[in-house]
Amino acid sequence: MVRAGIVGASGYAGAELVRLLAGHPEVELTALTCRQDAGEPFDRIYPALTGWVDLVCDAYDAGRLADQTDVVFTALPHQLPMTLVPDLLARGLKVIDLSADFRFQDAAVYEAHYQPHTAAELLQRAVYGLSEVFAEQIRNADLIGNPGCYPTSVLLPLVPLIEADLIDTDLLIADAKSGVSGAGRGASLGTHYCSVNESFKAYKVAGHRHTPEMEAIMSRVAGRPVQLNFVPHLVPMTRGMETTIYTRPREGVTLERIAACLADSYRGKSFIRLRGAQPPDTLHVRGTNCCDIGYHLDGRTGRLVLMSAIDNLVKGAAGQAVQNMNIMLGLPETEGLQALPCPL
Amino acid sequence: MVRAGIVGASGYAGAELVRLLAGHPEVELTALTCRQDAGEPFDRIYPALTGWVDLVCDAYDAGRLADQTDVVFTALPHQLPMTLVPDLLARGLKVIDLSADFRFQDAAVYEAHYQPHTAAELLQRAVYGLSEVFAEQIRNADLIGNPGCYPTSVLLPLVPLIEADLIDTDLLIADAKSGVSGAGRGASLGTHYCSVNESFKAYKVAGHRHTPEMEAIMSRVAGRPVQLNFVPHLVPMTRGMETTIYTRPREGVTLERIAACLADSYRGKSFIRLRGAQPPDTLHVRGTNCCDIGYHLDGRTGRLVLMSAIDNLVKGAAGQAVQNMNIMLGLPETEGLQALPCPL
Amino acid sequence: MVRAGIVGASGYAGAELVRLLAGHPEVELTALTCRQDAGEPFDRIYPALTGWVDLVCDAYDAGRLADQTDVVFTALPHQLPMTLVPDLLARGLKVIDLSADFRFQDAAVYEAHYQPHTAAELLQRAVYGLSEVFAEQIRNADLIGNPGCYPTSVLLPLVPLIEADLIDTDLLIADAKSGVSGAGRGASLGTHYCSVNESFKAYKVAGHRHTPEMEAIMSRVAGRPVQLNFVPHLVPMTRGMETTIYTRPREGVTLERIAACLADSYRGKSFIRLRGAQPPDTLHVRGTNCCDIGYHLDGRTGRLVLMSAIDNLVKGAAGQAVQNMNIMLGLPETEGLQALPCPL
Amino acid sequence: MVRAGIVGASGYAGAELVRLLAGHPEVELTALTCRQDAGEPFDRIYPALTGWVDLVCDAYDAGRLADQTDVVFTALPHQLPMTLVPDLLARGLKVIDLSADFRFQDAAVYEAHYQPHTAAELLQRAVYGLSEVFAEQIRNADLIGNPGCYPTSVLLPLVPLIEADLIDTDLLIADAKSGVSGAGRGASLGTHYCSVNESFKAYKVAGHRHTPEMEAIMSRVAGRPVQLNFVPHLVPMTRGMETTIYTRPREGVTLERIAACLADSYRGKSFIRLRGAQPPDTLHVRGTNCCDIGYHLDGRTGRLVLMSAIDNLVKGAAGQAVQNMNIMLGLPETEGLQALPCPL
Repeated sequence: MVRAGIVGASGYAGAELVRLLAGHPEVELTALTCRQDAGEPFDRIYPALTGWVDLVCDAYDAGRLADQTDVVFTALPHQLPMTLVPDLLARGLKVIDLSADFRFQDAAVYEAHYQPHTAAELLQRAVYGLSEVFAEQIRNADLIGNPGCYPTSVLLPLVPLIEADLIDTDLLIADAKSGVSGAGRGASLGTHYCSVNESFKAYKVAGHRHTPEMEAIMSRVAGRPVQLNFVPHLVPMTRGMETTIYTRPREGVTLERIAACLADSYRGKSFIRLRGAQPPDTLHVRGTNCCDIGYHLDGRTGRLVLMSAIDNLVKGAAGQAVQNMNIMLGLPETEGLQALPCPL
Repeated sequence: MVRAGIVGASGYAGAELVRLLAGHPEVELTALTCRQDAGEPFDRIYPALTGWVDLVCDAYDAGRLADQTDVVFTALPHQLPMTLVPDLLARGLKVIDLSADFRFQDAAVYEAHYQPHTAAELLQRAVYGLSEVFAEQIRNADLIGNPGCYPTSVLLPLVPLIEADLIDTDLLIADAKSGVSGAGRGASLGTHYCSVNESFKAYKVAGHRHTPEMEAIMSRVAGRPVQLNFVPHLVPMTRGMETTIYTRPREGVTLERIAACLADSYRGKSFIRLRGAQPPDTLHVRGTNCCDIGYHLDGRTGRLVLMSAIDNLVKGAAGQAVQNMNIMLGLPETEGLQALPCPL
Repeated sequence: MVRAGIVGASGYAGAELVRLLAGHPEVELTALTCRQDAGEPFDRIYPALTGWVDLVCDAYDAGRLADQTDVVFTALPHQLPMTLVPDLLARGLKVIDLSADFRFQDAAVYEAHYQPHTAAELLQRAVYGLSEVFAEQIRNADLIGNPGCYPTSVLLPLVPLIEADLIDTDLLIADAKSGVSGAGRGASLGTHYCSVNESFKAYKVAGHRHTPEMEAIMSRVAGRPVQLNFVPHLVPMTRGMETTIYTRPREGVTLERIAACLADSYRGKSFIRLRGAQPPDTLHVRGTNCCDIGYHLDGRTGRLVLMSAIDNLVKGAAGQAVQNMNIMLGLPETEGLQALPCPL
Repeated sequence: MVRAGIVGASGYAGAELVRLLAGHPEVELTALTCRQDAGEPFDRIYPALTGWVDLVCDAYDAGRLADQTDVVFTALPHQLPMTLVPDLLARGLKVIDLSADFRFQDAAVYEAHYQPHTAAELLQRAVYGLSEVFAEQIRNADLIGNPGCYPTSVLLPLVPLIEADLIDTDLLIADAKSGVSGAGRGASLGTHYCSVNESFKAYKVAGHRHTPEMEAIMSRVAGRPVQLNFVPHLVPMTRGMETTIYTRPREGVTLERIAACLADSYRGKSFIRLRGAQPPDTLHVRGTNCCDIGYHLDGRTGRLVLMSAIDNLVKGAAGQAVQNMNIMLGLPETEGLQALPCPL
């Protein structure tokens, strides 16, 4: 049994990690830390878990974590993990960080969109945890920068096509839509039920910090700089993320070839469900680690429409983090992620 | 491994049975029948389950069911099961029926609220499947009348108190609220998103057919006729049922005694979570087989308020049916019902 | 034209007052004050109103209000109005207060549930603004204690029946359900979209401060102390309140007599829509000042079920306040409240 | 007073017409026809309107309509209006048709996407009722093809920019999101609450019949064929439509010039609210005839993002129809469309 701990367990991604790790057959969940709720039984914060989780939230203590755990998930706002992770690694722990702090290889890019990086020396050592794409590197990593939810939804359909040079990377537009849990558990007017219900709107138009993250990965895969138009939107629902991507196949590339490329790339990958022309639906991935992908070639305009659906808290955060842990530990990728989803 | 089949798998309760049985470690789900979707892969009807369930829907055939299964769940509209169940029992199958057809011991009561019963001879043989209350009888049964969702939510808090004669059964009022999935998968103006959103209303006021079902069980437990005022309401949500019950403790009965009675009755029952003064929340039982129960004594009026929350499709239907199967087969009650719920 | 001002315009009830008063044919809306948003154009806080309202929020200044307005609506948290209202009255303004501060005749009752009252001398002068019931007193008042939303939904169906002594006031149970806007605009974990969606639960069971308000009015009408069991619940919707009331007709009182009593009491009252056996639906009163009332006699138990539906922000707050202003000013009661509601 | 009638009043657009016309100060609503509900009081179908509308639904009778009305709104599924409208026009009525039947000048385009046109001779006489754009032609028309909801949301931001040749029409991508009322009142599995809640998905990808309608108008305005990539999505909400458009300014065209062009084109047009960089929100247009427009230039990629929000049932259907009637009759454009929206 692997002993796992979660730093920042009371946030939405942290709580979802609790769900997945407490149900993981090869994991013993041994430590939860929560800044504000230290001393509180975890199921008082999330009463759904009464009977399943009887851990009490601790204050953060690196030494205690090193004693109690083998792998630590840090589910904190960016800027905090970079102050904790060097110490955790030094104590021999494997770390999977769900913030942006270790997603970039180039500190300058990170610093242009966030703030100065105080652990930049770890950026080359960290592996970007897009599980299906970087499994080889993840296998040998001890520090994972777990991808953002939007990047996961954009990169999974695009990376194989960029890698195979099947699409024109001069036209890449991603129109993404997220449920409200993506905004986190913090109370604000923007997440008030009455602000969200019957409301659909874009936000951070062409200014969301996930954009450089996506561009960095696509550029790495393409071997040249790639730019993306990215506009996120807020949907009146708790969970789920749908992204519709507009691009153009290279001259002569048919929809069959697109489909075959995706099928080849994701053969044997249980969490990628190729749906063909059927548009993926957030309801069908709710609670799962799946990424459903659909595609359509608009014959008239010659443009390709790719669509993906994920659960932003699972494949977009906690689920992919557990998948990465499985890969790092040599466990089957799907371990602990196989609970059947509700059909509705 | 027990081989299980579901008759009527494409309805909401049927689909939830698929989820639970396909994930049950001691069950092999071997047959699904769906009137309208025969020949259709089940995951085309419920795409969430792609990758988990690859069964194809069959037309109903009792002989084939007898060959393929040991236990059959009938998830059909009432009046249909009574035509199928005698044959299934005769073929040696155990049957758990989710309709009202086998919930009543007295055919006259059934017939007063439904229609003539064509298999009344089975009513004494059938056991009412309120798992925590009738476990002994369920253990030896081969035919279960699985309780309605409203009865489950009303009876679990009340039965121990009636049995211990702690409350005045002359005052029993249950104000119940259900999510829309309780209305079933059939399309109608009443289940149209635009009819439900921002709508809260009562329906079938004091005329719902679950009333005689609840009264029959309470009367049996009390040893005298008991009447209930019951008003169901529709809530703009998919899953969940909350019931608030108003009654009066017998002279001298304190809240502590109420609490102790419930605690004693449900000691060791994993699915009953006593929440004390904390009102139960449908969000905290979503996707689980739990029934959360809260209670409050209004010191001024001397009345007792009991509150319960269940997932109408799980503890209110498919989950309790699986729990009953476990009991019938001598398996641990919680087997196949232990997947951790989403914390939000 | 009457000049009206709103103190506390940025809250939900305040904003709804803006909508109604800005569209009122006999009113000129001349002043808005908002503690936190002074200097802000009102439509930046509520962009729906761009093009309709071009007022800028002011800081509170009693002298300026006296110069600019004839009638002032105070839409503030309780405890604040009692510090402002004496001064406003002294300056000759009519005041309609939407808080609890002037709803009680007996300071001791108020103080038992809120905090010490610093303007208790005004309590006898204030009139409880339940428009259909106390129109005569409202006509001559210069200070209105505008009813709470729950009291409005409970009292409108009950008061005529208590007044006519048709029901047994020893059994009065009100199970009420409110949309989230009732919790106000303040951000909190409890109003977070992810806490509310798919959640239905009771809160403040038998401890809500609207209970003494309702009991005071019912007792006054009955001429003897009347007690109520009151349990409020939170519904995943923005607007709307449904209340289901359980009581018992006096010996020999038929449903026809109940119906006739309500019809007689509310004859000519445009905002009361008697729906007979049809359960009222919050969707049908959304955005209106209507209170829809239904009733059903449970023949078996002899109990009477009354149901009401209101929009908690309109008839439950701002709409009734405007209705009270109309009555005070001798305008038709419905003036400014006649905009047709959306059919869905 | 103008006498108006609605053919197909029981559908969602029809009911919204009832709301607007019954509240219109210059209109007397004299006739409602509903195929299935003839003889039914309209407020039994839409109980929200009790007290405001006391008309009874009639069967369709052209002669009676000609006697009772001056202007008729046909709110029927396409293919039906073309069989009725020639007769209505012949009887001297003005007709505003909300279906697709009279939106195309070229019968061949219509027939390629719908079915044979049996009143093609009227297509040149009909005017496309995009009010702000074609007001001059509408003024003199007796037959209006009222625009689809998606075309309204796409064309209002784009037409002025295409007309002024400020954008590259080779890149036009519209990613649109609609509330469920856009699917109409018909009950179906797709509009079932449980299919919609927590679900976000694309549908009819690059195959929606509003595409040729939009292309026809844009091509007319541009003076050359213009193509559009159009993907609609379904949002879990009742009302509202947001569209995000991706295009490219012509070389040297700044955002200021884009902004100025829109401001000039829509100066004095009350229903167009330019929001600058602020993304428009469906909640802010709910119940109104407004189209809110936002814009953002992505400096890095040089692409222009346009966003619009409308209420699909108002500006996207009934409201624009009433606006067109106002223009046809020489009334102020905003007459009957000035009710203040709910601030939340």
